[in-house]
Amino acid sequence: MGNDPLTALTRKLRDTVETRLAALTPPADHPPADLHGAMRHTLLAPAKRARAILAMLAAKDLGADAAAALSPACALEMVHAASLILDDLPAMDNATLRRGRPANHMLFGEATAILAAIGLLNRAFGVIAEDTALSAVSRVRLADILSRSVGSDGLVAGQEQDLKWSPALATRLDVELVHARKTAALFSAAAEMGAVVAGAGEADITLMRGFGMKLGLAFQILDDLLDATASRESAGKNVAQDGGRPSLVLSIGLEAARREAQIYLDEANSLIRATSGDGAALRRFAMVLIARLEHRIEPPREIREMRG
Amino acid sequence: MGNDPLTALTRKLRDTVETRLAALTPPADHPPADLHGAMRHTLLAPAKRARAILAMLAAKDLGADAAAALSPACALEMVHAASLILDDLPAMDNATLRRGRPANHMLFGEATAILAAIGLLNRAFGVIAEDTALSAVSRVRLADILSRSVGSDGLVAGQEQDLKWSPALATRLDVELVHARKTAALFSAAAEMGAVVAGAGEADITLMRGFGMKLGLAFQILDDLLDATASRESAGKNVAQDGGRPSLVLSIGLEAARREAQIYLDEANSLIRATSGDGAALRRFAMVLIARLEHRIEPPREIREMRG
Repeated sequence: MGNDPLTALTRKLRDTVETRLAALTPPADHPPADLHGAMRHTLLAPAKRARAILAMLAAKDLGADAAAALSPACALEMVHAASLILDDLPAMDNATLRRGRPANHMLFGEATAILAAIGLLNRAFGVIAEDTALSAVSRVRLADILSRSVGSDGLVAGQEQDLKWSPALATRLDVELVHARKTAALFSAAAEMGAVVAGAGEADITLMRGFGMKLGLAFQILDDLLDATASRESAGKNVAQDGGRPSLVLSIGLEAARREAQIYLDEANSLIRATSGDGAALRRFAMVLIARLEHRIEPPREIREMRG
Repeated sequence: MGNDPLTALTRKLRDTVETRLAALTPPADHPPADLHGAMRHTLLAPAKRARAILAMLAAKDLGADAAAALSPACALEMVHAASLILDDLPAMDNATLRRGRPANHMLFGEATAILAAIGLLNRAFGVIAEDTALSAVSRVRLADILSRSVGSDGLVAGQEQDLKWSPALATRLDVELVHARKTAALFSAAAEMGAVVAGAGEADITLMRGFGMKLGLAFQILDDLLDATASRESAGKNVAQDGGRPSLVLSIGLEAARREAQIYLDEANSLIRATSGDGAALRRFAMVLIARLEHRIEPPREIREMRG
């Protein structure tokens, strides 16, 4: 496995998403320049674009062009970037490094960083609303899915629980609830949005939503493993700061957490196999995404390839 | 003019909006309780509900039931509440008092206050998306209008310009641009959204958007007058902190600013008279809204009633 095991398709989709993200956000010299510079700093930093690619491959596996899901894909990346800006704030994780660059507030100040996050979340809904290539019915449903994934049962709730975390009082289920909300909610929304764009039936939409949730839970466990073992250079962000934060690695240990991730991947695989699509692109992408994280966990270990 | 010159209709609409806002936001004991408590603290504090009532009366004046615009009306109040939470943060205005109560972060801490603002902005788009009484086409357009009013030419941009304000370098046009974005953009969106809900033609929609903009600009000038002259008790928020902030009162003086507000009101009146609706409810509401602010400016002065 090389340093960049993304397949040609996912690399192409990542490029498509990044080009589109740059076009959907005002230029950094467009006034107010600091606001737009701050939005672009985090949004356009090198990234996996996992949520975007997930949405596009879900659409593709259910029979649509991957590009039909480009707007929701970009909306998801905007929401994710907004969440990274906020997570790093002094009032939250107080992190200085993100995606290998200074955290947003380190360059632009707290106030502008907060406004950039608000601007990105707001733009995400605008990008969906203004995509006239999608039917109004689809756009409304996409906005509804996005709002649910961010709201009181999603990202915002997960971040609040994360901030108020009391390891001594928390059960393993509490850890998984925070992971479900903070990470897996957007993965789940991504897969569901791809299915909606493809005009899938309700059964496939539900299966895709479940697939995204399981994949997101596996991804978060492996990210915690990476955090527990990797160097700051390889992670591209501040690491080993999670002693008081929800982590399955801390709850049940490295090996058990790794097994748990594999169980989630197996469940994700079962769900994708139950859809009416072929699931090939998504299964391959999930495997590559997970393998990439696994590869950076020290010592590197092989993970079983998802069954075709 | 009494202490509460709102007409029976606007009082009824305000009650309807407040009841609905309480229902649309998770209860304060629903976990994570601090997040929901913080969202409700600012959203449900006593307020004029000017933006909500504007949307509902714009719908009514163009032939719909006022209640048809209840979802966009609530969305606007959620966005407004989010902006108040953010404005008061230590990194921004560092205010301690809002709507006669402690500012959000004083009670809930900075991190939760920021998440509450994000939660409210996010919920605003969800409330519009999930209102199946409105057509999908209308909902998509409402989301698009809301996103534009918040984004890079709206609220977020205005707040960024406000934060970076250099009185020595600013022209009067700069002041008005910040006011247009920070205050009038949501008023403009409100009136436009009401017109969209009513199924109005494009000419009426454009006129309503302009009406909201002019009314919002007048409102902001009078709010600056209030800030320049009122006590903290009567304003319900920290006042006289605006020495370095964009204010037409500071740029051109009290009397000239008051005249300018009247010019905006006259322009608003002209626009509303040009619509195909009768405009009666909106004209009355605008007059009452402005008179209420005028009444609190010391010394109180009468303002000319808008022509019928």
